[in-house]
Amino acid sequence: MVIEIKELIERNKLLELCEYLQELNSVDVANQLMDLEDEELVLVFRVLPKDIAAEVFSYLDKDSQQHIVESITDREVTQIVDKLFLDDTVDFIEELPANVVKKVIRNTSPQKRELINQFLQYAQYSAGSIMTIEFVDLKAYMTVKEAINHTRKTGTTKETLETCFIIDQARHLLGSVTLKDLILSEDDMIIEDIMDTNLISVQTSVDQEEVAHLFKAYDLVTMPVVDKENRLVGMITIDDVVDIIEQENTEDFQKMAAMAPNEEPYLKTPVLSLAKHRIIWLLVLMISATVTGRIIQGFEEVIQSVVILASFIPMLMDTGGNAGSQSSTLIIRGLALGEITTHDYLKVMFKELRVGSVVAIVLSVVNFLRIYFIEHVEFMVGITVCASLFFTVILAKVVGSILPIIAKKLKFDPAIMASPLITTIVDAFALIVYFMLARTLLGI
Amino acid sequence: MVIEIKELIERNKLLELCEYLQELNSVDVANQLMDLEDEELVLVFRVLPKDIAAEVFSYLDKDSQQHIVESITDREVTQIVDKLFLDDTVDFIEELPANVVKKVIRNTSPQKRELINQFLQYAQYSAGSIMTIEFVDLKAYMTVKEAINHTRKTGTTKETLETCFIIDQARHLLGSVTLKDLILSEDDMIIEDIMDTNLISVQTSVDQEEVAHLFKAYDLVTMPVVDKENRLVGMITIDDVVDIIEQENTEDFQKMAAMAPNEEPYLKTPVLSLAKHRIIWLLVLMISATVTGRIIQGFEEVIQSVVILASFIPMLMDTGGNAGSQSSTLIIRGLALGEITTHDYLKVMFKELRVGSVVAIVLSVVNFLRIYFIEHVEFMVGITVCASLFFTVILAKVVGSILPIIAKKLKFDPAIMASPLITTIVDAFALIVYFMLARTLLGI
Repeated sequence: MVIEIKELIERNKLLELCEYLQELNSVDVANQLMDLEDEELVLVFRVLPKDIAAEVFSYLDKDSQQHIVESITDREVTQIVDKLFLDDTVDFIEELPANVVKKVIRNTSPQKRELINQFLQYAQYSAGSIMTIEFVDLKAYMTVKEAINHTRKTGTTKETLETCFIIDQARHLLGSVTLKDLILSEDDMIIEDIMDTNLISVQTSVDQEEVAHLFKAYDLVTMPVVDKENRLVGMITIDDVVDIIEQENTEDFQKMAAMAPNEEPYLKTPVLSLAKHRIIWLLVLMISATVTGRIIQGFEEVIQSVVILASFIPMLMDTGGNAGSQSSTLIIRGLALGEITTHDYLKVMFKELRVGSVVAIVLSVVNFLRIYFIEHVEFMVGITVCASLFFTVILAKVVGSILPIIAKKLKFDPAIMASPLITTIVDAFALIVYFMLARTLLGI
Repeated sequence: MVIEIKELIERNKLLELCEYLQELNSVDVANQLMDLEDEELVLVFRVLPKDIAAEVFSYLDKDSQQHIVESITDREVTQIVDKLFLDDTVDFIEELPANVVKKVIRNTSPQKRELINQFLQYAQYSAGSIMTIEFVDLKAYMTVKEAINHTRKTGTTKETLETCFIIDQARHLLGSVTLKDLILSEDDMIIEDIMDTNLISVQTSVDQEEVAHLFKAYDLVTMPVVDKENRLVGMITIDDVVDIIEQENTEDFQKMAAMAPNEEPYLKTPVLSLAKHRIIWLLVLMISATVTGRIIQGFEEVIQSVVILASFIPMLMDTGGNAGSQSSTLIIRGLALGEITTHDYLKVMFKELRVGSVVAIVLSVVNFLRIYFIEHVEFMVGITVCASLFFTVILAKVVGSILPIIAKKLKFDPAIMASPLITTIVDAFALIVYFMLARTLLGI
């Protein structure tokens, strides 16, 4: 499709281009625009019909948005910003360098400017920063007919009409009705009698992760946002929550692989920035591995007498690490989804103890059969290896399951207690057990 | 709150209990019901006002639903199933044992029974299995006023009215209008003129992961589902997509920690089932560790001459594993979110080569300084360890980034190419490099 656009540009068929773009979904237009060269991008963006330009703009990435704002006239900027929903405007302003922000703010109505400034004060990732203020508010004493008329009058500029909120004179939140309720009710019914007063709402300062939790727990589609005095200030819609859920998941994946979280898409992140996000944890974990090194040094004489023992170290360490990270992953995920709470720690430990025992027995027996019958190691060496494996797996399961819960209890993110850290801890334990058992069982 | 319910039951204040429950959100009622003993559960469920009983029922877990259906009369079953939305009915029937399913089906109207059977034929995790059939359909020739009247007449039993779909006589999908569009348009406008014809739709057989992708890419709230002839058969709503997104993420987390995916919540999964999901990969990975064992055995004489070399094995292996799993995690996530495609493999490899070099230099230098100046190892041993670390980290980064892409290309799930597998592969490489360098540099 990009080829078609390029061809129409080259042949200077701008009217055809305009018609062609009009038939596409705004998301697709945005995707294709981002594949163009910078000059073409601005050219095509200017060709876009005015009514879809703002929508397409909201789907562009930061770089393209910035390039367009820098290249077009002040009047054109005003036209776009006027048509953008406030939350989209704020989203893109937050990402821009100061000089471009100035150009945008300069070309915004004083009223909208004030709103933007207010929005920029909400903490990042708070309910306030993700809410929209384009919603319909109704009064409790209205009839359904009045409410529908009011909606018709004020609704055109609103992001969604699916839910309307009912407020009193002082803007305190009283209840909600869906557009469906309005349509399905008799004209002369009073809003107060049909509104839903059993509302789940959040304050502006609540973290977006908590917002996503509430949406999932209560199957919500919209949620009102209130200030400390329960006055309605905005509304959060589920399409933004979907983005938050993916963002939070990405963050968990990154933390669990020992990286500093980073929101930017991989291919757009500069090499040094990627390196920076990874190096700290790698350094910390590398230096903690000093401990395992010291343990091996402390048991040097064991390795020297029975060198074959060294060859089972990787298997022991890896299996312990894998067993532990299975448990920690399940618990971290359970905590994130709210399926497990910190109160369940005893249940979890006991469960992992049992799961760990089953897994440990199977692994130890299979391993013994393999190294005794296939690799022909001495009987007592085989026993040493498999007994160590047995204890390591059980401990790895218990440690892997309990550390995320402890982290959560201490208000850390459980996701840091994942594979890399668990592996380092389990390694040390595995080696101590291994060498102690070797000393005892092999009489070194 | 559960205590309050228990108290009201003990004092036999059923009317008060009914009033108390009526004031709560259905989700909260369901959560509290699940905390009750089995007999109390049925008792309280019977006390629930009829209009919220079905909704509460749809939020209960499988065990509670089954217990209720087994305990209540056939007439009561009919009442609940009649009020349940079809997709919720199908969801819960899919989970039940045959005798309970019979009791449900027996108490369902023939018409609904046919629909249920039709639904049960859609493949699990397909668009057909997650769609709802309770939506409003309109004709293109209707006026807005006629459309609103039609909606009012048929809308009460529909799950959502936010989007209405326009079909022709043969039920071919023509377009959609939102309830917002209807409300904001003049009464005498024709639906054909205001409908959106630029629809994103899926066929019943499309996988739910693809459905979730489309919702995210196009910021959808509803999506029509069609058969092979583009005839409208259902609609998917975003609240179900949110569940799918979390389900797919959970699956990825589990696969990435070398577990067979399992949808049941952790605390509800039996010990043996948890063990079964974990054991296979642990066995496979344990047995692949034979390779690393063999490598160490092959270089036995190196360890015997310079025993201290053994003490750096854990650090080398762990750091390599961590470096590799950082890369694989980023790439797996990027592929899952559609930010990276298999065509980007060269870009990705080159990027990881550069990131890997930066990270490898920092780690090697820090490590050398530590072991040379603090642990006082010989200069050449330090060089051996750090050169091995350097090559291991770079290789880990490249292998970690490219294996998920290869998996995707071969139509496997990239998530299996995560930390555990990468670690096993990188271990083998790290040891070979380490011992070869030791032989050469230390002249063993």
